[in-house]
Amino acid sequence: MRDVFVLGVGMHRFGKFLSLGLKDLARVAVWDAIRDAGVDARRIGCAYVGNGLAGLMTGQEGIRGQVVLRDAGLGGFPIVNVENACASSSTAFRGAWLEVASGMCDVALALGVEKLSHESTAKSIEALATDADVEATAGMGIQFPAYYAMKLREYMAATGATTRDLARVVEKSSFNGSLNPYAHFRKPLSPDEVLASRLIADPLTLYMCAPISDGAAAAILVSAEVAAQRCAQAVKVAAVSLGSGRYRRPGEADTTVQRTARAAYEAAGLGPEDIDVVELHDAMAPAELMLVEDLALCEKGGGVKLLDDGTTRITGRRPVNPSGGLTSRGHPVGATGLAQIIELYWQLTGRAGDRQVKSARVGLAQNSGGMVEGDPAATCVSILVRD
Amino acid sequence: MRDVFVLGVGMHRFGKFLSLGLKDLARVAVWDAIRDAGVDARRIGCAYVGNGLAGLMTGQEGIRGQVVLRDAGLGGFPIVNVENACASSSTAFRGAWLEVASGMCDVALALGVEKLSHESTAKSIEALATDADVEATAGMGIQFPAYYAMKLREYMAATGATTRDLARVVEKSSFNGSLNPYAHFRKPLSPDEVLASRLIADPLTLYMCAPISDGAAAAILVSAEVAAQRCAQAVKVAAVSLGSGRYRRPGEADTTVQRTARAAYEAAGLGPEDIDVVELHDAMAPAELMLVEDLALCEKGGGVKLLDDGTTRITGRRPVNPSGGLTSRGHPVGATGLAQIIELYWQLTGRAGDRQVKSARVGLAQNSGGMVEGDPAATCVSILVRD
Repeated sequence: MRDVFVLGVGMHRFGKFLSLGLKDLARVAVWDAIRDAGVDARRIGCAYVGNGLAGLMTGQEGIRGQVVLRDAGLGGFPIVNVENACASSSTAFRGAWLEVASGMCDVALALGVEKLSHESTAKSIEALATDADVEATAGMGIQFPAYYAMKLREYMAATGATTRDLARVVEKSSFNGSLNPYAHFRKPLSPDEVLASRLIADPLTLYMCAPISDGAAAAILVSAEVAAQRCAQAVKVAAVSLGSGRYRRPGEADTTVQRTARAAYEAAGLGPEDIDVVELHDAMAPAELMLVEDLALCEKGGGVKLLDDGTTRITGRRPVNPSGGLTSRGHPVGATGLAQIIELYWQLTGRAGDRQVKSARVGLAQNSGGMVEGDPAATCVSILVRD
Repeated sequence: MRDVFVLGVGMHRFGKFLSLGLKDLARVAVWDAIRDAGVDARRIGCAYVGNGLAGLMTGQEGIRGQVVLRDAGLGGFPIVNVENACASSSTAFRGAWLEVASGMCDVALALGVEKLSHESTAKSIEALATDADVEATAGMGIQFPAYYAMKLREYMAATGATTRDLARVVEKSSFNGSLNPYAHFRKPLSPDEVLASRLIADPLTLYMCAPISDGAAAAILVSAEVAAQRCAQAVKVAAVSLGSGRYRRPGEADTTVQRTARAAYEAAGLGPEDIDVVELHDAMAPAELMLVEDLALCEKGGGVKLLDDGTTRITGRRPVNPSGGLTSRGHPVGATGLAQIIELYWQLTGRAGDRQVKSARVGLAQNSGGMVEGDPAATCVSILVRD
């Protein structure tokens, strides 16, 4: 396999944009990425387009990528539309990586785009069902907060973490988000404000939960030869590992995130100790406490300690979610995974502005989507390295 | 890139199955393919799942592959859900091929599944829109027959082909379909019967158009090492080329099918003269006359001659659509592309029963989907070789 590099990225700010459609969001991200990479758009050899819910939200079920890329003036190359719920665009990133890594092409476009806001909030929420046959019928598919609440209660019982600890995660991520011009929410929140917000599913309050957002994120992935033309802004993709929920295989205790992270570390030839900056899938912010453990970034039950000693703060040794994470940056399902990659890219190339972390060389992004039997249906762990 | 082989295939018969869901259809195809390949299901290293319209038909927009594979008792490996309208499952086939070819895994599953029949036919038809923003609003997205009719009228004016010639294509494919136990329709039709059926869009009559079908198709793709364990039934994937509609690039006159076929011939190191058996995307059966030309299987305007001299009949030198094609085998959007591959596989391994063609060694499948500016949004051309 050949080395693959991210050479440029683009984003449409995340937020609630009732007047914008999929095409409007995608056009901005795609062309910002192309300009940023400094490649001729005619060199694009393929595109992977991640979207989660346009079928149910807008009726655009088929050829979503072709439709938005045509509007952006692009086409002719192979276009693969991929979907993996909230992990749709990290799956797109992996597809683009594999095309370049395998030698199929030298320049690949990965795009994630989602338009979730709707005059009817109920329509947005219904679209988030998991197994529509089973869960939607039973009213369960839309109960992600309830699922996270159950997991967090178990976690609190096992580790002694308090609801204030959960709120302190939001204090950290909302502060980071306040520094991010691409974030949906830019208000720093105190633990008291987080705890005083409406209870969603005990112990989760409103401000601990990711919002329903619109947005788009794109990246240009290239071969070493193309990257050499602008090596100052090339960031190597050291690993992109995709896993799916493990079911009917009793006897294995690890989660999909744990397994997928292990695979990514192995592929990158790196360990958790090498990671300088992390973007992780905090659809409910306090999940960060469990996820740093699943990613082997701390010992069992050590998530709160990382908050206490400042390790995961933006000024710490290993900042987590410098972008603000899903809760502050926002969560346009099919664009979230690439937004994480983009944040790492900006951090590793020193372009993160007010939220720039210090001397980061290796970044890790973890993006998960859907749910089967209590485990994410898809998890993608990517590791990026700036030489 | 490594050599990749199809080692086993499975299908759920195409047809109208109001009482069956996506999971029921997928389960049959997947396990038939696994058993056929003789591989331990635990060796599956990844799955690509193609589906076109489950979001709009059933509300199952997210993680469709995980949902149907969980039901089949499978999971844990990377699952990528892909969509390219009527070319969704050839796109899935290409993804599985790339995983094995690049060395990411040794055993990959490609699945295409679609459930289109519904108590409300209108719901099935609405789901087939192309660019929902534009065409559906204008009542154009569902007008594939009108588009084909326009193209065919041009073709008839240019070549002198008659409406009876169009009907003779259906005579051929419906005869083939009558021999195929997996086909939606198994009644051989005479040209008179075809011409007497209801006019849909002049010159197209009802029997020239593919039906709305349900069905599933699956294939197991493996590395040379795995294939060597059952080499009697291994068929090499010599090429899988994917193209998308070419727009805003004036000055190039060729169609997506022409370009994609050229790329496939080049990748396979073969030419049109080497092809022994063809499955092509006859969503409207008479399109075969134009497509054999686009695939360079005859000179310009030579499609009718191939019918006249028997070349494309099941007993001819180069049978086209021995399965019955989309019009007779049926057209469950997200399963059609893999059904073509499966037909080639059966033909090349001598397992096509009553419709077996003679001494075929090289097969070509062409699958197209969606539409942008009068050209298919996605076209996949695959070439399979039996050594």
